[in-house]
Amino acid sequence: MPEQTIGLVVHATGGAGVLHQLTGVIARHQGDIASVEILDNTPDTARTYFEVTLPGDATALIEELRGHPIVRAVEPVKTLQKIYGKRIIIMGGGAQVGQVAIGAVSEADRHNIRGEHISVDTIPLVGEQKLADAVRAVARLPRAKALVLAGSLMGGEIETAVREVRAQGLLVISLNMAGSVPEAADLVVTDPVQAGVMAVMAVAETAKFTIERLKRRIF
Amino acid sequence: MPEQTIGLVVHATGGAGVLHQLTGVIARHQGDIASVEILDNTPDTARTYFEVTLPGDATALIEELRGHPIVRAVEPVKTLQKIYGKRIIIMGGGAQVGQVAIGAVSEADRHNIRGEHISVDTIPLVGEQKLADAVRAVARLPRAKALVLAGSLMGGEIETAVREVRAQGLLVISLNMAGSVPEAADLVVTDPVQAGVMAVMAVAETAKFTIERLKRRIF
Repeated sequence: MPEQTIGLVVHATGGAGVLHQLTGVIARHQGDIASVEILDNTPDTARTYFEVTLPGDATALIEELRGHPIVRAVEPVKTLQKIYGKRIIIMGGGAQVGQVAIGAVSEADRHNIRGEHISVDTIPLVGEQKLADAVRAVARLPRAKALVLAGSLMGGEIETAVREVRAQGLLVISLNMAGSVPEAADLVVTDPVQAGVMAVMAVAETAKFTIERLKRRIF
Repeated sequence: MPEQTIGLVVHATGGAGVLHQLTGVIARHQGDIASVEILDNTPDTARTYFEVTLPGDATALIEELRGHPIVRAVEPVKTLQKIYGKRIIIMGGGAQVGQVAIGAVSEADRHNIRGEHISVDTIPLVGEQKLADAVRAVARLPRAKALVLAGSLMGGEIETAVREVRAQGLLVISLNMAGSVPEAADLVVTDPVQAGVMAVMAVAETAKFTIERLKRRIF
């Protein structure tokens, strides 16, 4: 049987070490955990979502989980990867973030209709340190593929953070703006709507667009 | 010492049972795991992000993790809760999702400037089953507080999914549209920009707006 990735929501009694016990069962079945979310974590109830890749059928794993003393129920669900797919992250000033989102959402719509799974996530933020923290944190967001920096002035610590996340493999697009962030980005785009569209095109399998093959970096 | 919540990125050697071993160390220190993200999971490298609430100082936990045979490095980081905060999720047709996002991002900007942490996440999607799956999956997204359904026609299985996630405590706002989804929502709003603004106002601590105190449900 080929390997398969399944989604499971496990309802258990709350308390210390729940995750340790559940992951122990999964490890015994050679399950490779691709994603975890703690959904509820109260003294009474622990609800955890797992995305697990298994070498074969999931029946034995689900049965052992169901028989575990702390487990109340196990619910197979569709995986988040399948539903929300790749994520484009847009951050910066509210006015510009909104315009980039318009472009990105419209373009993602066109690709999702053809079978892609792209979502567009935004956070309006102000301040060098807050933005630098948020840029660095993108590397800790599951399924994030590209970051668009939308503002009028960004530099200093934000530039450093951009170079760090690019080194970790994230694609960074910057609006054409004051400050040193555009210099540090993969691509600089003047029109915010186009910046959103290009970010989606760059990560969509359904698009014919490769950043590496562009003859210029500034639009 | 009062309890504290810390963020840790643990770099370890890859392989089966990494999460089981790391959570074992955290459990021994009475760490309550609020969030986990699998950042890398290859045969060579496992990079995992933990948000852990501890009864006291984190030094002993970090030291034991650093001394563990599979651990290469432990990096304390700011928590995602602190950076990205509450999430508003917008889904449906591209044209309308973009307009709701404009309203939500502008309003989130105003609250984030005053110390709130609200991000706005979107996914353009078409089709009853895909939308119903995505609505149900919102209950498995960390930090999701409100859902806005933006489209022209939604009903059937999507309505059922809306009732399910509302029962789990999620606030659901629907655009005024054809189909049975508006009947199932907490709030129905005709203008997409206003729908986005109201979603943010409803979850912001910095706003004076309480859904329960509204005299009508349709705007």
